Amino acid sequence: MPAHSPKFLFGKSIRTLREERGYSQEELAERAGLHRNYVGGIERGERNVGLENIVKLAKALSVKSRDLFESLP
Amino acid sequence: MPAHSPKFLFGKSIRTLREERGYSQEELAERAGLHRNYVGGIERGERNVGLENIVKLAKALSVKSRDLFESLP
Repeated sequence: MPAHSPKFLFGKSIRTLREERGYSQEELAERAGLHRNYVGGIERGERNVGLENIVKLAKALSVKSRDLFESLP
Repeated sequence: MPAHSPKFLFGKSIRTLREERGYSQEELAERAGLHRNYVGGIERGERNVGLENIVKLAKALSVKSRDLFESLP
């Protein structure tokens, strides 16, 4: 998986923001209404996350959706 | 479909940016490497667009991916 794939870059953003807030993957998943394994897959760059889950993650991390895309082209 | 759904807001952003550039849906689809019907569905707020297509659309519209999320929470 190329290091600059959208899934990889997005996953890195989620992990960074999550760790900055001191949340576990489990806690982020609960806040976002997602399954813990799904959050793990996102952070590993395995998930082609859709709009609805993007907005859920942004809300759970207390940021705007666009903030999750800072590192993406 | 609630007016503020992520799919609706994203679709509106794509349509606005596309029309600003004077592209038809067909031309945007071609630039983004997507099917014309898929672009139509996105603009109607019917598609839960994933990361990979988000980046393709941003590139085709000559913006950063985050710019497509200005109107989203």
